[in-house]
Amino acid sequence: MAAAAPPPPPSPTPAVISEDLLPTGYNVFSRIRLATIVDVPHIHKLIHQMAVFERLTHLFSATESSLSSTLFPENSPPPFTSFTVFLLEVSQIPFPLIDQNYPNFSPIHKTVNLDLPITDPQAETFRSCGNDVVVAGFVLFFPNYSSFLAKPGFYIEDIFVRECYRRKGFGKMLLSAVAAQAAKMGYGRVEWVVLDWNVNAIKFYEEMGAQIMQEWRVCRLTGDALHAFASINI
Amino acid sequence: MAAAAPPPPPSPTPAVISEDLLPTGYNVFSRIRLATIVDVPHIHKLIHQMAVFERLTHLFSATESSLSSTLFPENSPPPFTSFTVFLLEVSQIPFPLIDQNYPNFSPIHKTVNLDLPITDPQAETFRSCGNDVVVAGFVLFFPNYSSFLAKPGFYIEDIFVRECYRRKGFGKMLLSAVAAQAAKMGYGRVEWVVLDWNVNAIKFYEEMGAQIMQEWRVCRLTGDALHAFASINI
Repeated sequence: MAAAAPPPPPSPTPAVISEDLLPTGYNVFSRIRLATIVDVPHIHKLIHQMAVFERLTHLFSATESSLSSTLFPENSPPPFTSFTVFLLEVSQIPFPLIDQNYPNFSPIHKTVNLDLPITDPQAETFRSCGNDVVVAGFVLFFPNYSSFLAKPGFYIEDIFVRECYRRKGFGKMLLSAVAAQAAKMGYGRVEWVVLDWNVNAIKFYEEMGAQIMQEWRVCRLTGDALHAFASINI
Repeated sequence: MAAAAPPPPPSPTPAVISEDLLPTGYNVFSRIRLATIVDVPHIHKLIHQMAVFERLTHLFSATESSLSSTLFPENSPPPFTSFTVFLLEVSQIPFPLIDQNYPNFSPIHKTVNLDLPITDPQAETFRSCGNDVVVAGFVLFFPNYSSFLAKPGFYIEDIFVRECYRRKGFGKMLLSAVAAQAAKMGYGRVEWVVLDWNVNAIKFYEEMGAQIMQEWRVCRLTGDALHAFASINI
């Protein structure tokens, strides 16, 4: 508890303050919280923007309904035990406290100081709870398992920051939120994939201490091939 | 329902049967079932053998206790919603029926006919429930998620068949059991990784219809780097 405050000093005479002593730039308040089923329309739009960015819209078939039923099924398991979405929100004013304190997670707040204000042409589309809150990105992850360590880890399936919020540290903030959650839960690893020609991303990941597993290739069985193979032998 | 059988014909006079009409070879009865906590000592030995095979024993730190608590925690979720192990067992005699019929899985049986009997020097070590039953391999998998499809899939972390049981179709049987389970549950994909120099494995996977995702690299954050990155920014 804070000690009782001393009486305020007498107000100084107002004076002209040199401009270079004024606080410079613009504060953006950001928060990472667990997404809920109410956020699905925003999550759907974010995933679609990611598909556009990756030029993979021909592979995109998610709907709000299919996302709701798979990410937030009835009798959802506790956070972090299955598919989990962290939502990144930004605001011009500080965030109020919200009632989202799970036993092993509380929302993460960070104030970012920028030289220029951010102009968000889609602010209305991504308006979140609260007049001044806008959804700026997300990370979708779920537990994986290392049998050598006999420990769970997290696998990051998607990490995405909307265009006007990029290059401001928000991607790193989302990644470190997942790493922090893994460390807090005693998990052994965080893993994800990157395209081999994306040298900037690879450099960034290496600088943050990640290993790039050069020898491993992902194998995928899907569509007709999955069903054909599923029906052999048994 | 089958029609009533006609009366049997009179027994023919016993005759010498030419040897090449006799059934040849040796039958091996095999079964894939869900592993339980009772199987942990076998799973632990199988994972260790896999680490020896991959020359990665320096990364192996699993114990029976840590496997038990992470693969089969108290209040385990239903099969297939988290980390799941299929165990491959073999026997010289047909398997009795076991009470392991979950709503979405029943044990899978297959009879394999071989030219020569299998000599298993570790049969005693891997003796399973029932005198004639031996554990021959396993596959460890868990759900993953495709946000473009808005569908879960399965990720195969480990697939392993003990040396004396290899090149008899058991690996394919384990893989197709996971593919069949994915198809049955309406899942979109089965994925795993392979070492890029393992050309035989890659050929096998491509022949079964899998795509090898040449452009993707796995990134891993673990150990001190995980904890360092977890503590930044937040």
